[in-house]
Amino acid sequence: MTKKLIAEFLGTYFLVLAGTGAIVTNSITGDLTHVGVAITWGLVVMAMIYTFGHISGAHFNPAVTIGFLTNRSISGKEAAYYIVSQILAALAASTTLLFLFGNIANLGATLPREGWMQTFIIEFILTFFLMMVILGSAVHGKAVKSFAGLAIGTTVGLEAMFAGPISGASMNPARSIGPALLSGSLEHLWIYIIATTLGSIAAAVIYQYIKDK
Amino acid sequence: MTKKLIAEFLGTYFLVLAGTGAIVTNSITGDLTHVGVAITWGLVVMAMIYTFGHISGAHFNPAVTIGFLTNRSISGKEAAYYIVSQILAALAASTTLLFLFGNIANLGATLPREGWMQTFIIEFILTFFLMMVILGSAVHGKAVKSFAGLAIGTTVGLEAMFAGPISGASMNPARSIGPALLSGSLEHLWIYIIATTLGSIAAAVIYQYIKDK
Amino acid sequence: MTKKLIAEFLGTYFLVLAGTGAIVTNSITGDLTHVGVAITWGLVVMAMIYTFGHISGAHFNPAVTIGFLTNRSISGKEAAYYIVSQILAALAASTTLLFLFGNIANLGATLPREGWMQTFIIEFILTFFLMMVILGSAVHGKAVKSFAGLAIGTTVGLEAMFAGPISGASMNPARSIGPALLSGSLEHLWIYIIATTLGSIAAAVIYQYIKDK
Amino acid sequence: MTKKLIAEFLGTYFLVLAGTGAIVTNSITGDLTHVGVAITWGLVVMAMIYTFGHISGAHFNPAVTIGFLTNRSISGKEAAYYIVSQILAALAASTTLLFLFGNIANLGATLPREGWMQTFIIEFILTFFLMMVILGSAVHGKAVKSFAGLAIGTTVGLEAMFAGPISGASMNPARSIGPALLSGSLEHLWIYIIATTLGSIAAAVIYQYIKDK
Repeated sequence: MTKKLIAEFLGTYFLVLAGTGAIVTNSITGDLTHVGVAITWGLVVMAMIYTFGHISGAHFNPAVTIGFLTNRSISGKEAAYYIVSQILAALAASTTLLFLFGNIANLGATLPREGWMQTFIIEFILTFFLMMVILGSAVHGKAVKSFAGLAIGTTVGLEAMFAGPISGASMNPARSIGPALLSGSLEHLWIYIIATTLGSIAAAVIYQYIKDK
Repeated sequence: MTKKLIAEFLGTYFLVLAGTGAIVTNSITGDLTHVGVAITWGLVVMAMIYTFGHISGAHFNPAVTIGFLTNRSISGKEAAYYIVSQILAALAASTTLLFLFGNIANLGATLPREGWMQTFIIEFILTFFLMMVILGSAVHGKAVKSFAGLAIGTTVGLEAMFAGPISGASMNPARSIGPALLSGSLEHLWIYIIATTLGSIAAAVIYQYIKDK
Repeated sequence: MTKKLIAEFLGTYFLVLAGTGAIVTNSITGDLTHVGVAITWGLVVMAMIYTFGHISGAHFNPAVTIGFLTNRSISGKEAAYYIVSQILAALAASTTLLFLFGNIANLGATLPREGWMQTFIIEFILTFFLMMVILGSAVHGKAVKSFAGLAIGTTVGLEAMFAGPISGASMNPARSIGPALLSGSLEHLWIYIIATTLGSIAAAVIYQYIKDK
Repeated sequence: MTKKLIAEFLGTYFLVLAGTGAIVTNSITGDLTHVGVAITWGLVVMAMIYTFGHISGAHFNPAVTIGFLTNRSISGKEAAYYIVSQILAALAASTTLLFLFGNIANLGATLPREGWMQTFIIEFILTFFLMMVILGSAVHGKAVKSFAGLAIGTTVGLEAMFAGPISGASMNPARSIGPALLSGSLEHLWIYIIATTLGSIAAAVIYQYIKDK
């Protein structure tokens, strides 16, 4: 269990450090462009899955952990430990960026471009498909599971690419909590906690209809 | 069979939502550039294949389904159900984008840059090679089938990259029907239905000469 | 043997069509940028290897065929047929682009940015490492051969990315012959035939010292 | 042993040639942008691992070799030979670029954007996660080791993407020594030797707590 929590902490820490760090360094230099930021998100998820997936399952995301809890693939106690580890890691990552760069670009916090409802719906859909990809590629009995890291990283990358400019493409409460708390931009945080969690639960429920016996 | 149709619906829905959504959000923000749009198309196909390929075969495309029908890899009845599911999913995806963003960038509809013949020939060639890659990488007896998702997603991504600015790089009647109907830009739709289908059939026929016994 | 030649023809045709087509459509629209052109080259090689590799070996390149001939992995007669098929395919691809777009951007012909010697050395090095990657990842007895398509496509993509703006990053006589003949820009063609072939032969010779017994 | 040293030399040579060459050719032409440079770094690491990993282990990096030495996965004598081979290869790559292009962009030397401490911390973190990915994806007993090349190349690519504009994203003493010596920009070289080595050692130590027995 300690191994699992270390893996969740390290994976989530680097996920948030690299992803929100890309937003921060792009804000400072302009060198990455949105394309580079989205690629960073996808690649860091992929790398962390192949590094820690066989240790902790590589959730790195409270919404994903709650999705697995919905399907009883993880116990309530273990889920709670996972979520605490993920949130602490995200806070540590945002603290690192604050120390290195100061409070720039809200430390990569997710913010809606327009009204809250548009972003709520988008985050619901993004997390729904993220969780569906996880279940379909890494859990389904006939899946080629070694490719799950490629499929899941790919999904995060493409969702960041097409939806990032509108909703911030969080898909992950921990990823949003870290920058929001450390940069003090808390107003819209509830969207990124509730919509993502509901999206993940919905995917876990729908998946029951297509899973193998 | 229900499982298969759900998988085809979900995969096609997200394919069209992400791909045409990338065109729409790029039209709103300018952040993705054409490179980001093309990457989105390739990655979403890859992710959906590793998620649903072992459930439905991951066609997500009426031209591909008709290609398999040409080779009698799927029954006529099943093909019809697949195609209905794919078109309904594309309509649902375009409806989602219309609701979220309004009628922007024709909802990502495919339109020829110049005359219809140039686009007709390009769409024929694009779909010919898409279907050839599917048959060569996912069906051929000696193929390393676990890499088919990588090969097919890669093909869609590169075809969107080099041909998207000219023909729209549809390769998929459902992908063109959704935005065309919902945005009301129907004039050139016939090209994207006929040229893609003929390209896929041609690949299925030529494949007979190189397949293993 | 007919199957192999069809596979070499189709693979080389699409390789040259997509790669030089990307240069042409970028010249018309400016949408791809050099980054998009280089990505297209890498991805099309990857897709074609997973589609045709188990049929013909997926050379698509006379320099690669001559590299294999150096190591006696292919007979002289078969190599000759392969090379003819590859050159005919490249000519067909350039003809297609000429018909579709007219003589734009020299149909994607490779041209040295500065003097011939710089380009000669670069093309030698590029093809040396392309052939070394092929031998190391697809032939070496301990290689994880299923990943060879990823490694080789990756190599073509990165070489096009960093060297394309200087030498054109041909690495392939057929890829240079097609556009040069059809667009009438023959002056520097000899560099792209001789330097690439010598680089490939050098890799085949050096590989003897690191191969497994 | 000779085979291993040839593999380390060739892999490191091409890694530094392509990666710093991308910086140089982007400086000359502006065509790659930072996104293209970062992609080049990631892809060349991936390609070299699939080409030489089964021969030498594909370190290509003195910090990585010292990380393995920390865990006693390599003998001190072999580590010394590896490091000499890597540094000679980096010097040869920078010499090649100097000959081809002259002393442009400091031959791709790594330089801190601001103070040395920021870059020191960043390089420590980058190399820590690079070595952790190597240990988690290529060494851990339950890892899907065939995907290690993908995971490690991905890591180098994403670290170059988000941190390159600030610290240069070296992660590799040899990669920094080559351009620094040949271009004469030695002032900050110590950061890139010490911070990367410490980061790699830290990862090797932390890994002891999460490895399988």
